[in-house]
Amino acid sequence: MSLTIKAHIAAHFNLNLRTAKQTKLTDYNVKIRPKPIYHSNQLIAFQPKMSAAVKSASSAIKSSLIEPDGGVLVDLVVPESERGLRTTEAESMPRVKLTKIDLEWVHVISEGWASPLRGFMRENEYLQSLHFNCLRMKDGSIVNMSLPIVLAIDDETKERIGSSTNVALLGPTGDLIGILRSIEIYKHNKEERIARTWGTTAAGLPYVEEVITPAGNWLVGGDLEVLKPIKYNDGLDHYRLSPQQLRKEFDNRQADAIFAFQLRNPIHNGHALLMNDTRRRLLEMGYKNPILLLHPLGGFTKADDVPLDVRMEQHSKVLEDGVLDPETTIVSIFPSPMHYAGPTEVQWHAKARINAGANFYIVGRDPAGMGHPTEKRDLYDPDHGKKVLSMALGLEKLNILPFRVGFLSEVAAYDTVEKKMAFFDPSRAKDFLFISGTKMRTFARSGENPPDGFMCPGGWKVLVQYYESLQAEEATQQPAILTS
Amino acid sequence: MSLTIKAHIAAHFNLNLRTAKQTKLTDYNVKIRPKPIYHSNQLIAFQPKMSAAVKSASSAIKSSLIEPDGGVLVDLVVPESERGLRTTEAESMPRVKLTKIDLEWVHVISEGWASPLRGFMRENEYLQSLHFNCLRMKDGSIVNMSLPIVLAIDDETKERIGSSTNVALLGPTGDLIGILRSIEIYKHNKEERIARTWGTTAAGLPYVEEVITPAGNWLVGGDLEVLKPIKYNDGLDHYRLSPQQLRKEFDNRQADAIFAFQLRNPIHNGHALLMNDTRRRLLEMGYKNPILLLHPLGGFTKADDVPLDVRMEQHSKVLEDGVLDPETTIVSIFPSPMHYAGPTEVQWHAKARINAGANFYIVGRDPAGMGHPTEKRDLYDPDHGKKVLSMALGLEKLNILPFRVGFLSEVAAYDTVEKKMAFFDPSRAKDFLFISGTKMRTFARSGENPPDGFMCPGGWKVLVQYYESLQAEEATQQPAILTS
Repeated sequence: MSLTIKAHIAAHFNLNLRTAKQTKLTDYNVKIRPKPIYHSNQLIAFQPKMSAAVKSASSAIKSSLIEPDGGVLVDLVVPESERGLRTTEAESMPRVKLTKIDLEWVHVISEGWASPLRGFMRENEYLQSLHFNCLRMKDGSIVNMSLPIVLAIDDETKERIGSSTNVALLGPTGDLIGILRSIEIYKHNKEERIARTWGTTAAGLPYVEEVITPAGNWLVGGDLEVLKPIKYNDGLDHYRLSPQQLRKEFDNRQADAIFAFQLRNPIHNGHALLMNDTRRRLLEMGYKNPILLLHPLGGFTKADDVPLDVRMEQHSKVLEDGVLDPETTIVSIFPSPMHYAGPTEVQWHAKARINAGANFYIVGRDPAGMGHPTEKRDLYDPDHGKKVLSMALGLEKLNILPFRVGFLSEVAAYDTVEKKMAFFDPSRAKDFLFISGTKMRTFARSGENPPDGFMCPGGWKVLVQYYESLQAEEATQQPAILTS
Repeated sequence: MSLTIKAHIAAHFNLNLRTAKQTKLTDYNVKIRPKPIYHSNQLIAFQPKMSAAVKSASSAIKSSLIEPDGGVLVDLVVPESERGLRTTEAESMPRVKLTKIDLEWVHVISEGWASPLRGFMRENEYLQSLHFNCLRMKDGSIVNMSLPIVLAIDDETKERIGSSTNVALLGPTGDLIGILRSIEIYKHNKEERIARTWGTTAAGLPYVEEVITPAGNWLVGGDLEVLKPIKYNDGLDHYRLSPQQLRKEFDNRQADAIFAFQLRNPIHNGHALLMNDTRRRLLEMGYKNPILLLHPLGGFTKADDVPLDVRMEQHSKVLEDGVLDPETTIVSIFPSPMHYAGPTEVQWHAKARINAGANFYIVGRDPAGMGHPTEKRDLYDPDHGKKVLSMALGLEKLNILPFRVGFLSEVAAYDTVEKKMAFFDPSRAKDFLFISGTKMRTFARSGENPPDGFMCPGGWKVLVQYYESLQAEEATQQPAILTS
């Protein structure tokens, strides 16, 4: 599988590089030359040279299409020239060990996805986020901030920190990741955080079980510094373009509209229909070069979601099969972990894309939703995500799609007459089949084919192979369990 | 007790009327003559004559000190001249029966405490309230709206309403109260409402148990019309001044600052200290005539809170004993029911007082807080109320008190050396005694006297008598229960 992925990655990024050659140097004042990056001897992406001069200038980069929240894209990676000094400094600080998911948040904050946030939230920001899904800036303006982005510590760590004002952050394997400065420690009322974020405290919320329940009873906020860009070395790092890199790429491509599509599932032809139809409409509206940011979420997902590497391979196939146009699409990984917090989380998904330079955001039915963990119903009203997004404070500058009045016609479903995914037509409702993510997984798991035209064959094959490998794995594990 | 109350009411309102004689006619363009109101042959208050002409003009009344939210004070009482017509019209509409607490909300909405809200929330307002504690106005401005103000109906009522656009609202005893027009019916997800409002779903929240759990699974929003002002005929209606009446009274008194104090408990000398100290500081700041709005909550409270009539008698004693200055104080009842929702609810308490014309709001420790219903701790961090209030969106025009940086010194406690309530002095912490509401009730219930200087003797006597009457009642009831 790994080889196939790499081939498609190369194919995809060669396209990116081809358009990158048309680079017009943007109006940053500082010239930033893309530097090709090689991984396992294969050209996989380009990255700007991160000299100290560029670093400090880069914090002033503004999108030509949409301003980052707070006006300046946050970038918390220490210039390489200062890395040694900060490392020595960090060695004398009390240490806080990060979990895998804490590290994903460090990644998110350090690259400015959560701009203007400059570190894990202090209580003042935490309370604003919980109660208003917003932060008020010093100039009185409001930015959206719907999820509390916080770092939990236990009693023992709190005691070890004592009255220190700075702490060193260690990764899950013990390596020094960064520093949190001018810290503030405050109570982690888990029940209140969960209730206000998810609108339920029912047992079985994936992020709660994985992250919050095992976490400590204190939160530590402060200003973050990261010693070097966060990498995962999983063969997918080249897909992890920072907001700064994405903005640069959009400018390189001379895009006049960026429409972002968040997903955490394989792409079926219904998704593709929505994306292609959006492009068509943007062209109709007079945009000359709308670019799709196909932006799968790369952080924590629940156990029964399709893993990131398989999804990336599936996405590559979709581009290879021509279901989406590689010439006008950028595939990149959004490094955030998933909360499954419906209307609260969809705001975060949209807000982060503002910071990445997208000025249009596609929202589907029941974004960031899931089944209620203990009751037989959806956790959220499937329409609330769209509604809350459209009324959200601090997201006014973002265009929320679909445009059409009345959302019903925007729902893609399988048209059993035309044998393809199409926009649902209420006048002949009985011709349409809704194929949920669960249904799709059931098909793939049982080796059964979905209806023709549901997904491109190449993409479907990736899924079937994944579920076969899963069953093979389960089969080898089962006897061991039985005899134990 | 009833006679005593009436005597004090008269004493109090005579003072009000005395100052009312100094009336300068305010700049409303329409001259509104205060009309004395008699109850049981006793002059108890004044009320403007509600002619149709004045009614329509009154919606344009603005405070001289602070604008109501949305710029115009909402007033949804139908002019008397149209009452007959509307009654006839309502008779052909499907009926929705209100609970006692629904009626309290009708009262609140109809008088403009929740301005710019003009009825029970439709889904659009409900979602904004739940997620942002705010409503966005058409001009883009934001007003605070932290509590969902909604009307629940059951499946049967929903079916009866069918596709009607208007419904008639009946009071708990079946009398026609008003009309809800252009209605919208949407799902009542109780779990989500509770979690996002209280930050917990633990069993035992008083408002949840009393109102939400027994309520139907649908909410109905729409534009409210009330046929006549809501009255309770409990001997306390003269205390229930509407925001419009309060604003008029403030203008009559030529107040240049109004500082509101919300309470649902008897007034002890610590409260009085805070109120008197606030007045002193306002004078220091240069205000010439600051008026205290002593504003006890009059709607639903939990079973172990002191009932409204007893509190009103206690408050009268406090004024009579001179602990608060009747010349510069207006006592009035805030008709809202109590949620006990801490930081979320304190915003409502403050916002409603903006509409009543107060430009200063006093907030104490743990406002609208209570013990966690199932765990041995406060439900809310006692400091969060103040913090959230100070950062709340839509409350920017309101001055939140206390002024001093650092809230600690603002906490009143019993000084065992000086034998009086005083601001807590951390340098001699051991001299201070914190007397909680629970502690106070325990004293009163056991007939034990609190420390000298905790509460004026007249006020304390009212409480002791109340708890004695309660015990007497329990004693007579007990055998009946045992023999049944």
